[in-house]
Amino acid sequence: MHKVKIGLIGAGYRGIIHLENCLQRDDVNIKAVVEPNIEHHQKIHQLFKKYKQPLPTIYKDSNGYKEMMTSITLDAVIISVPWDFFFEITAFVLQFPVYVGIEAASATSLEQLYTLKEIKETHGTQCMLLENTCFHRDVMAIQNMIDQGLFGELVHCRGGYEHDLRSIKFDENMNYGEGAKGEASWRTNHSITRNGDLYPTHGIGPIASFLKINRGNEFVSIVSHASKSVGLKSYVAKHKGEHHPNAKDKYILGDVITSTLTTKNGETVILTHNTNVPRPYSLGFRVQGTKGIWIQEHGNHLHLEDYTDRDEWMNQPHQIFNKYDHPDWKKYQYDAAKTARHQMDYFVLKEFIEAIKSHRTPKYDIYDMLTWLAISPLSEQSIKEGNRTIKFPNFKEKRTEEAIY
Amino acid sequence: MHKVKIGLIGAGYRGIIHLENCLQRDDVNIKAVVEPNIEHHQKIHQLFKKYKQPLPTIYKDSNGYKEMMTSITLDAVIISVPWDFFFEITAFVLQFPVYVGIEAASATSLEQLYTLKEIKETHGTQCMLLENTCFHRDVMAIQNMIDQGLFGELVHCRGGYEHDLRSIKFDENMNYGEGAKGEASWRTNHSITRNGDLYPTHGIGPIASFLKINRGNEFVSIVSHASKSVGLKSYVAKHKGEHHPNAKDKYILGDVITSTLTTKNGETVILTHNTNVPRPYSLGFRVQGTKGIWIQEHGNHLHLEDYTDRDEWMNQPHQIFNKYDHPDWKKYQYDAAKTARHQMDYFVLKEFIEAIKSHRTPKYDIYDMLTWLAISPLSEQSIKEGNRTIKFPNFKEKRTEEAIY
Repeated sequence: MHKVKIGLIGAGYRGIIHLENCLQRDDVNIKAVVEPNIEHHQKIHQLFKKYKQPLPTIYKDSNGYKEMMTSITLDAVIISVPWDFFFEITAFVLQFPVYVGIEAASATSLEQLYTLKEIKETHGTQCMLLENTCFHRDVMAIQNMIDQGLFGELVHCRGGYEHDLRSIKFDENMNYGEGAKGEASWRTNHSITRNGDLYPTHGIGPIASFLKINRGNEFVSIVSHASKSVGLKSYVAKHKGEHHPNAKDKYILGDVITSTLTTKNGETVILTHNTNVPRPYSLGFRVQGTKGIWIQEHGNHLHLEDYTDRDEWMNQPHQIFNKYDHPDWKKYQYDAAKTARHQMDYFVLKEFIEAIKSHRTPKYDIYDMLTWLAISPLSEQSIKEGNRTIKFPNFKEKRTEEAIY
Repeated sequence: MHKVKIGLIGAGYRGIIHLENCLQRDDVNIKAVVEPNIEHHQKIHQLFKKYKQPLPTIYKDSNGYKEMMTSITLDAVIISVPWDFFFEITAFVLQFPVYVGIEAASATSLEQLYTLKEIKETHGTQCMLLENTCFHRDVMAIQNMIDQGLFGELVHCRGGYEHDLRSIKFDENMNYGEGAKGEASWRTNHSITRNGDLYPTHGIGPIASFLKINRGNEFVSIVSHASKSVGLKSYVAKHKGEHHPNAKDKYILGDVITSTLTTKNGETVILTHNTNVPRPYSLGFRVQGTKGIWIQEHGNHLHLEDYTDRDEWMNQPHQIFNKYDHPDWKKYQYDAAKTARHQMDYFVLKEFIEAIKSHRTPKYDIYDMLTWLAISPLSEQSIKEGNRTIKFPNFKEKRTEEAIY
């Protein structure tokens, strides 16, 4: 069997998970790894040893990906890099005849996204955002229930990224930026320079899938709102006192960002980004149709007219989830259970690899990626312009006037 | 002791509750009841008998309220009428030297609200929207926790009215309008002629209170969105077939209406109106501050930094609710337990009566009422204008240009 030859760009927090999941598969051959941060190299070595595979070429230079692309023949590349490098690296890699898998990222302008569209359309490259939440068991089961009509006609969805990142945005000395540990070295700067939904794909991926966006439906408009930004400075003040330099008014990212989107088919969507204040992690999904509702917050809550009494929540929602588990989940859940970290990571990688092996377009293609990522610059723009409702670009079409600013 | 002399305008579904709660109090004397629907008269008679009080003047004519106001000396009037009569009756009654209590209603234009403001300011009448949710035990406890700093600085709130009204909007023959039973006779017509948040006060009352709106803070802007309207026709089709005249595309009220409001102090608010599709009843409250979050959906969920581990929901939220129950709740909960229907109805009436007895402004005054009710016409306008963000009027100030349309 021909193994899929993959090069990994980035083997940090997320990249290392993709590496291990690739090593677990018998249809993948890791040909190279690019990782400039030598702190991660020990773990890389350990993994190849653990899975009894020969160490491939390891590039330690941050430009190593260019050398890899020009000197090694690959079927696919997986890019898992800090947001600041997402565009530059993706734009370069898309010029090569490989499948490009991209870990959840953040785009800073529509310009970037239209550039990626142009490169893709010039070179015909296949590209998939590896949004694992689209392959979460609950999300796949809900998709199955939607497809089988249990929710009736959908009218409204919600979701988002509500993750208290304060202990990630600051290291234990309440520092961030160059020299700070972990994601604080790069992620926090976005809270100082940007005010919008910085990380929309975990929420919008599943919702776009439920609503069949780019499959006959499309987003039509978006308007975004930012609350004041007081969470980060009060967090630093709590730990280091209000005179600490990072306890000042330097953050512009609203603590809670909400965006409302409309679709061609008449549904509305509310997306939330909430990373500066305390709360338990949640993607806060909601699907409301003419026959029922799903809310995921502090557990799964279902009301389905065909199964539930009027005005009641289902007592044992897990039973209906079990019944409607997606066929893929039922078939591969035990393989997925062996996977590093999340089972959904197994399924998202499986889809990517299978698309490569059968030379087909992945389930989520570059137009899905561009649509989802566009929410960041669009939300920033809407907030900057006083919560103006902005036309949502259709990346399958030529760029139009409204989308240029 | 001088008893507060009250005239009731409307003794239907909600008015009859106010009547019974008034009859239970030893400081109230019901002097007159206006109720044109004779179906309700038997219940009125029963209640006066039950509480051993002499039957007062009963007006059976729909204009009886005018006769009552001019011929009977009253301290206060409680208006509980279908939305269509709210404005006309309130505008009339506000001209008299009485306290006016108004059951949750729906305004159809800013014009109406500015007219009420003018009458109030000419005559100096006291007026309180009897929004019982402001006096719900959980809401009062959360208010207490907010006041004691448990949530830190507030940044974002949510709430609304999510109530599957399909079996109220249609009688058992799937009819509505004149001749239909119950609220279907008047309420459904609003789903055919209006597209906006028809019933905002249950949600916005508590939120405005949490955010101290009209107490140093104010709403600055609002933008609203409507999903498609398919819930009502599919409900009728399900029960009577798709050829039933009421299973047609005649409804314009979006099944899910969402409004995003901003405030002078930098908080954002999302308000939901959801009455055409199946789901369990919920006011969907959320309060997010720099130190914690409360979500009320399928129960009460609390994360308070001072009490809860990072990323965890509180295991026994009722314990903290018990601890922080509002002093009024602790003191009067046993009296409230005897009340017709909801305990919160006891507390809202108590506040109204006590304001009258001590000749003071009620806790929620006419400016609160105008602010809350304005959400209906503003949301309709925003939706009509393609989800335009509209400046929110400040009813304490003179009417400005933006508010005229």
